[in-house]
Amino acid sequence: MLPPLLRLKLDFMNDRPIGIFDSGIGGLTVLREITRLLPREETIYLGDTARVPYGNKSRETVTRYSIETADFLLKYDIKLLVVACNTASAYALGALKERLDIPVVGVIEPGAKMAIASTRVKRVGVIGTEGTMKSGAYFDAIKAVDPTVVVFMQSCPLFVPLVEEGWTDNDAALLTAGKYLVKLKGEGIDVLVLGCTHYPLLKRTIAKVMGEEVRLIDSALATALEVESVLKSTNLMREELREKTETPARPRFFVTDSPERFTRVGKKFFNEGPIQAELVSVEA
Amino acid sequence: MLPPLLRLKLDFMNDRPIGIFDSGIGGLTVLREITRLLPREETIYLGDTARVPYGNKSRETVTRYSIETADFLLKYDIKLLVVACNTASAYALGALKERLDIPVVGVIEPGAKMAIASTRVKRVGVIGTEGTMKSGAYFDAIKAVDPTVVVFMQSCPLFVPLVEEGWTDNDAALLTAGKYLVKLKGEGIDVLVLGCTHYPLLKRTIAKVMGEEVRLIDSALATALEVESVLKSTNLMREELREKTETPARPRFFVTDSPERFTRVGKKFFNEGPIQAELVSVEA
Repeated sequence: MLPPLLRLKLDFMNDRPIGIFDSGIGGLTVLREITRLLPREETIYLGDTARVPYGNKSRETVTRYSIETADFLLKYDIKLLVVACNTASAYALGALKERLDIPVVGVIEPGAKMAIASTRVKRVGVIGTEGTMKSGAYFDAIKAVDPTVVVFMQSCPLFVPLVEEGWTDNDAALLTAGKYLVKLKGEGIDVLVLGCTHYPLLKRTIAKVMGEEVRLIDSALATALEVESVLKSTNLMREELREKTETPARPRFFVTDSPERFTRVGKKFFNEGPIQAELVSVEA
Repeated sequence: MLPPLLRLKLDFMNDRPIGIFDSGIGGLTVLREITRLLPREETIYLGDTARVPYGNKSRETVTRYSIETADFLLKYDIKLLVVACNTASAYALGALKERLDIPVVGVIEPGAKMAIASTRVKRVGVIGTEGTMKSGAYFDAIKAVDPTVVVFMQSCPLFVPLVEEGWTDNDAALLTAGKYLVKLKGEGIDVLVLGCTHYPLLKRTIAKVMGEEVRLIDSALATALEVESVLKSTNLMREELREKTETPARPRFFVTDSPERFTRVGKKFFNEGPIQAELVSVEA
């Protein structure tokens, strides 16, 4: 049992929210897994919808945008930052870790680790945006843990607009997925990492193309598990110190443009409660 | 014949470049038509690739971005500004005209006028981005000239990513176009305005879906004709004062992100010479 004053201090420290940012709405799949796994944690989500997407922009620009969005969230005294965007994780995670004195969790390492744990034939496929693929971040993350795993990569630029249009289970989605995945299908992989936060919504279509023998890794779930493990190891968990009867915390949403569009399209990504976003500016 | 000093002054004034901006690379279709029609005019093109696309962003954000890009071009002493982006024309043309003391030409009015001149049945379709369609700018522009024309609008959010992926003439493009245009096809229109600078690259596919009886209006060409007419009416034409033997002027390109990607993807839009873009910042 902790002495009362220290207990109070820890309570206060751990009541602080988790900050989550993404270029737009895709990161809501990560938020969804976090709120499901850690329902008592306070969360603040920022979607940089004025500059979305990050996937086709340069390392320099994505890093600058990521620092600006992180700086905004830091004003809310967050205890942990989740970079819920693959492109930002690929390009800016190092810069953010260097800059911030709270834990920073990206979406790439968790997905890479889960892929390594899942593959039996040691052949892993990764799909994502142009930027994420070009960065080689998944390749590096997988090779760093297990250099014997062979990695195959494919960018799928049309997947994000397809998801945002709501075309996740129709013939256009299937045809597009077929075109992008035809090469990967021939590589004998048994694991495919969905290396973009939009892609979990295309899971059924991607599974149809890849077949049952290929396991799909949802990096949103892998990231939520990583957040839980970091909170535990740094003694920052909120629920450890609370009665379990409390109602789940509601996320707070911020966007840099078009709150209405965020609410409308966001529903497809986050179905754990209403999405009412506040419009803010993050530009330095 | 003008007196020598006035002639010199006009020469100097008219030697100034035409400034053209777009959210990214789509406006290159407008630049292409301008350089073809007015080969002796100096041109400066700015693609705001750090914040592309504008099509799914709000009026306020698009107006702010448009003013920042226009302000950048003004530093080059341009004699006329072309807003080569439908969304920016829809949202920001009024604000730009108010702010600038040079002629400002958008892409919507020229396309609307050409559509009215082309329709025999007085039923016109317009396709474009979410933002352009939602703004109602084409509807207003057509109705202002001829209120008896019936206007049908359809946003086609996947067309831009399809074009940027180079999928302009394949089965995925045809399937997508079929889905978007099925309603318009039933409306008995005889003219369809391609209300987005990317769409001319999908002309063949769109024509296949709409059939021969529907004339497609390329607003890039309409805009170039409008630029010519404005230059003539304001005595700002360069070639009027020059020997016709001069070689065509080369456009100068600026982008706010990823010059390499601009060069690579831009080739599909602009084939009048090499594209070497300089990286600049336009944020206020």
